[in-house]
Amino acid sequence: MRYSLLAGGKRIRPVLALATAHAVGMPTEHVLPLAAALELIHTYSLIHDDLPAMDDDSLRRGRPTCHVRYGEAIAILAGDALYAEAMRLVLTEQRGEPDRVLAALAELTTASGVRGMVGGQFIDIQGLENAGEEKLRRLHELKTGRLIGAAIECPLLLADETVRSTTLADFRAFASELGVLFQIVDDILDVTGTDVALGKPQGSDERHGKVTYVSRYGLDGARAMAEESHRNARAALDRAAPDSADELRQITDFIATRTS
Amino acid sequence: MRYSLLAGGKRIRPVLALATAHAVGMPTEHVLPLAAALELIHTYSLIHDDLPAMDDDSLRRGRPTCHVRYGEAIAILAGDALYAEAMRLVLTEQRGEPDRVLAALAELTTASGVRGMVGGQFIDIQGLENAGEEKLRRLHELKTGRLIGAAIECPLLLADETVRSTTLADFRAFASELGVLFQIVDDILDVTGTDVALGKPQGSDERHGKVTYVSRYGLDGARAMAEESHRNARAALDRAAPDSADELRQITDFIATRTS
Repeated sequence: MRYSLLAGGKRIRPVLALATAHAVGMPTEHVLPLAAALELIHTYSLIHDDLPAMDDDSLRRGRPTCHVRYGEAIAILAGDALYAEAMRLVLTEQRGEPDRVLAALAELTTASGVRGMVGGQFIDIQGLENAGEEKLRRLHELKTGRLIGAAIECPLLLADETVRSTTLADFRAFASELGVLFQIVDDILDVTGTDVALGKPQGSDERHGKVTYVSRYGLDGARAMAEESHRNARAALDRAAPDSADELRQITDFIATRTS
Repeated sequence: MRYSLLAGGKRIRPVLALATAHAVGMPTEHVLPLAAALELIHTYSLIHDDLPAMDDDSLRRGRPTCHVRYGEAIAILAGDALYAEAMRLVLTEQRGEPDRVLAALAELTTASGVRGMVGGQFIDIQGLENAGEEKLRRLHELKTGRLIGAAIECPLLLADETVRSTTLADFRAFASELGVLFQIVDDILDVTGTDVALGKPQGSDERHGKVTYVSRYGLDGARAMAEESHRNARAALDRAAPDSADELRQITDFIATRTS
C-alpha cells in the first residue's frame, strides 16, 4: 500500500479538493482526510488497472508496478485495502456535520461504484473498437471523470448550506468539463510524452489497441478539442467562483498544459 | 456481480444481522440494507480469494468461480464493485440516526480494512507453516471473525442508546466466540464434507498447504475444540440476551452442526 501510494504522482485529486475548499472559504485543512482518501482511491484503481489480467502494465509513477514488485496476490489485496482504508479515513477523521459527511461519502462511493469508476474500467477492458462516440465519452466520464468530479463536489457537500446551494450546479459543470480536459490531454501525452516524464511507458494506449481521442480524431483534432475544453472549463469556473478561484484556475491551466 | 452474489450460499452473515436486530427488539426489516451489504462484502472477499493469484479455486457455491466463468479482469472488478456497492447501499438505504449509521459503517469498514478481513487474507497467502498458535488465531479472527462480528455488532450500533450500552460488550464476546466456532467447523468440514454439500472441492485446505485447526490439532482435537467453543458461544449469548435470542441460539447450533 505504501509502495504505490508514496511513489509520487501529481496528486491532482487531493489538490483539487483542497483548492475547491479554499475557493468556497473553507480552511483547506478541514478537508485533508477527504483529500487523502481521494488519493487512496485513485491509487487503488491504478494498482488494479495495472494487473496482468487488466492492462498488464509494468511501470507506474516511474517504478515497477505493485504486482511486479510484490506479486499479484499482494497487489490485489493492496488495492482492496486502500479502498477500505479510504472509506475508514473519511468516516473516522473527516470533520463536519455527520449528515454532510454522509452525503459526501455517498457521492464518493457512487463515484467508485459499479456505475462509476469500476463501470468505466469494465467498458474499457471489453474493448471499444466498434463503440460509438457516446460510449467513448461515457467511458471517460466514468473511469476518469467521476473521481475528479468527486474531488470538486465532496468539499462543497461539506460546506455551509448557503455555499452549497448557490454553487453546486456550477461547480459540477466545471468538474465535468475538467474531467474531459484531463482525459483528452492524457490521450495526447500517451502519444507525445516521454517514458521518463510520464513515469510509465509512452504509447501504451496504442499497444493495448485502446480507442482514444487521438486514435479517433488524430493528434491535431485532439489538440483542438483540448483547447476548446480548456476554454469551457475556465468559463464554467468563472460562473462557479468568479472571485475566489485562483488556485482552481491554475490547476485547470496545469491540467491543460502539463507534460506528464 | 449477480452471478456470484445470487449463487446461493448459507447467508449466515445477513441472517445473523437480522436475528441480532430481532434479539434486541428492532424490526428486522430496519436492518435489511446492512444485512444485504454484509453479504455483498462477503461475496467480494470470496471472488478475490478464489482468483488464480490467491487460492486459485475453480468451484464455489456449487458453480465455477467468477474468474472461471467471466475471466480474471471481470472477477477483480466484480469484487471491487460489490464492495463499493455495499458501502453505497448502507449509506443511501440504511435508516437510523445518521451518526449511528456512520458508527456502524466505520465498524463495517474497519472490519474489511487492512487490519481486518484483508489483513487476514494477507497473512493467509504468506503461508503459516512456521506460524505460532497466536498467528493462526489472529488470522481467523481477522479473515472470518471480523465480518461475523460486524454482522452482530452493526445492528446494535443502530439500536437505541439504552439497548446498545447495556448489551454491546456481551454481544461482542458472543460474536468473537462464534467466529472461532465458525472457523473450526469450516476446517473440519474441509476434511469430512463432500464436494456436493460444500459447493467447493473438499480437501482444498490440505492441497493449499494451509495450517488449519485440523492440521494443527487433528480431527479429534478440532472436534473437541468445536464442542468447547459451541458451549462458550451459547454461554456468551445467554449473558448477552437471556430472554430474546431464540433465533441466535438456533443459528449458533446450526453453525456448530452444519454439514456445508
